[in-house]
Amino acid sequence: MARATLTIDLDAVQANWRALDALSGPATATAAVVKADAYGCGAARVAPALMRAGCRHFFVALAEEGAELRAALGAGPEIFVLSGPMAGDAPLLREHALIPVVNSEEQLARHRAELAGQPYAVQLDTGMNRLGMDGLSLARAALGLNMARPRLVLSHLACADSPAHPMNAAQLAAFAAMAMALPGVPRSLAATGGILMGPAFHFEMTRPGIGIYGGLPFAGARPVVSLALPVLQLRDVMPGQTVGYGAAWTAERPSRVAILAAGYADGLMRALGGRACAFAAGRPCPVIGRVSMDMIAIDATGIDPMPATVEILGPHQGIDALAEAAGTIGYEILTALGSRYARHYKGGEG
Amino acid sequence: MARATLTIDLDAVQANWRALDALSGPATATAAVVKADAYGCGAARVAPALMRAGCRHFFVALAEEGAELRAALGAGPEIFVLSGPMAGDAPLLREHALIPVVNSEEQLARHRAELAGQPYAVQLDTGMNRLGMDGLSLARAALGLNMARPRLVLSHLACADSPAHPMNAAQLAAFAAMAMALPGVPRSLAATGGILMGPAFHFEMTRPGIGIYGGLPFAGARPVVSLALPVLQLRDVMPGQTVGYGAAWTAERPSRVAILAAGYADGLMRALGGRACAFAAGRPCPVIGRVSMDMIAIDATGIDPMPATVEILGPHQGIDALAEAAGTIGYEILTALGSRYARHYKGGEG
Repeated sequence: MARATLTIDLDAVQANWRALDALSGPATATAAVVKADAYGCGAARVAPALMRAGCRHFFVALAEEGAELRAALGAGPEIFVLSGPMAGDAPLLREHALIPVVNSEEQLARHRAELAGQPYAVQLDTGMNRLGMDGLSLARAALGLNMARPRLVLSHLACADSPAHPMNAAQLAAFAAMAMALPGVPRSLAATGGILMGPAFHFEMTRPGIGIYGGLPFAGARPVVSLALPVLQLRDVMPGQTVGYGAAWTAERPSRVAILAAGYADGLMRALGGRACAFAAGRPCPVIGRVSMDMIAIDATGIDPMPATVEILGPHQGIDALAEAAGTIGYEILTALGSRYARHYKGGEG
Repeated sequence: MARATLTIDLDAVQANWRALDALSGPATATAAVVKADAYGCGAARVAPALMRAGCRHFFVALAEEGAELRAALGAGPEIFVLSGPMAGDAPLLREHALIPVVNSEEQLARHRAELAGQPYAVQLDTGMNRLGMDGLSLARAALGLNMARPRLVLSHLACADSPAHPMNAAQLAAFAAMAMALPGVPRSLAATGGILMGPAFHFEMTRPGIGIYGGLPFAGARPVVSLALPVLQLRDVMPGQTVGYGAAWTAERPSRVAILAAGYADGLMRALGGRACAFAAGRPCPVIGRVSMDMIAIDATGIDPMPATVEILGPHQGIDALAEAAGTIGYEILTALGSRYARHYKGGEG
C-alpha cells in the first residue's frame, strides 16, 4: 500500500481529558471541544471515547457538525454550537437537540423568534473582539436573558498560551463582572490554556480542546496521533544532481534519497520543504527540496537497511515539533491531516 | 447557516480540459490528473464531467483513489496509478482494472509476480529524481519490458512552470532518448506546464492537472472554485482595542470588524493572517490578526450595508492570488479546501 497510516490513540485522548479534568475541582464540569472533526482526529470516534471517559458536554463550531455529533453520541450529552443560531439553522438545532451559543443581540432575537423555549447559551466578548456580546449588548439584553435563562455563559481567552500576558487577568476580571448580570447561570471561560492557569479561571465548566489531542500548551499531554509514510522508491543521486520541483535541492555528496508517499494534499504543508525531518528507524532524515502534492523526498543517506515506512509524526516528532518546522502551531498540523490516510484507532474502550 | 459554501464550476472544468486538449494535435490523447480528490474539487463529480467532455484516461496517486474513481466512472476509461504497485496493492489493482505505473525494478518484479499479464505503465526518471526508472534500470529491464509491453511510458518535468529553465530541454531530450528503448509504446511527458511549452513536449499523451482546475501556469484557465464565507458577527472596535488570538491586531481608528465563518481547519491557512483580503460587495477587506481554527476577522470599516457573505475565492481573487498572500501556490490552496464546506456543483452536463 502506498497509502500512509494515521494512528489515533484513543487511550491517550481519554488520559489527556482525565488529566485536564483532574486539574479542576468537583464543582467544575469538564467539557470537550470536538469541532473541526475533533481537531482532525475524527469526532465520530473521539467523542464516544470521551463520553466513555465521563465527558457529558461537547462543543462544535457549526450546527451541521452538531448534527453529526448527535448521531455519534445519541441522546443525552449536551452539544453546544459556538457559531450560534444563524439564519436557517433552527430546524437542525431543534431536531438534534443542539444548544446554540448566542453571540449577539441579532442572534438572540433569532433564537427567540425561531427557537423560543429551547435551551441556549450566551457568549460574552471580554476583549478578544471575536464572537460574543459586549457589555453594552449584555446590559440591553440582560432582563430578557434572565427571564429565559441560558444554560451557560461563556467567553474565550485571547492569550491563554502566554500566561503572563496582561490580557488574561483583564479578561478574567471582565468575565466575572459581566457574568454577574446573569446570576445563577453556570460560567465557562477556560479552554486548555485557561485550565492550566489555575482555579480562578475554572468557574463551573472548562472546555479543553488542544490538550485532549496532545498539543501545547498542555506540555504534559500524551501524544495522540502518529503518522507513518511508506517509502515509494529509493534512489542514489550524485553530487550536482537535483531533486524535485524547481530543482530546488542539489546533492553535495553521493546521497540516497527516499520518496515518501504523502504530500501537501495530505496536510504535510509545502512550508515543511527544506525545514522538517522525518525519522527512519529513529534517525532524522531532512526533507529535501519542495514538498509535492503526493510525495516528499528525504535524504536517507546512511540509513541501511531502509525501513518500509518512515515516521513523520510519532515518538521522535510530535505535532508541535512538526508545526515549528512549518512555521505554524500544532493545531494547524492536526486540522490539516488529510482524508487519504488509512486511519487506525487504538484503545479508547476504558 | 454558518457553514460556508464552496462552489465548483464543472462547466469551467470541462472548458479548461477542452482548451488544453485543443493545444495538442489529433494524434495526442489528453488525459486528466484527478489525484488528491481532483485537487480538492471532488473526483466523484469532476471525473464524470471530464468523461462527458471526452476524456478517457485518468491519473490518480494511490490504488485506493483508483478504486473510488472506478466506482464513479464505471468500466471503460483507463485509470493509471502513479505510485505503482506497492506491497498489498495487487487485489485492488486487479479488481478495479487499474493500471499501475511501475517506477522501479522492484515494482516491475512485483508486477510480474503478482499481476502477470495485467496492463501496466512505466515511469522514467529524466532528472527530477523523484519517481521512475533511471537509465541504468531501464537498460537492465528493457528486454523484459518489450516482451510484455507497457500501455504507456511517462516521465515528469521538474521545472515546467519556468519554460526558460534549462532543465526542460534536458528532460525532453532524455525522455525522447530513453523512450526509444521501448519502441511503439505511447509516450507522455507533459502536464499542464508541458502542454503550454509546445508540440515537442506532447508526444502521444498529455496529462493536465492544475490547468483543469483553473490554476497557473495555465493563465487562460477559467476559474473553477469560488468560496463565500458567512458573516457571523459585526463589531465596532475603538482605537487601541485588539482583535483575536495573541491580541495580534490593534485598531488604529474606529473600525468595524466582521467575523467570518471559516478558518484554518477549512484550509484557509494561518499564513493568510495579516496578509490576505476578503471581498465584501466587491471591496477588499484585509484579514486582520490571526486566523482562528473556525473563524477569520476582517476589517470591514466603511462597508455599508455589510453583505451576509464575503468572497474569499471568486471573481476578485482566484486561487493563485490567495496563494500568493499565503506564500504558497494555487495547488496547495485547492488541495487544502476543507471538508466542512457545503459543496455546490454547477454545470458540467455538456
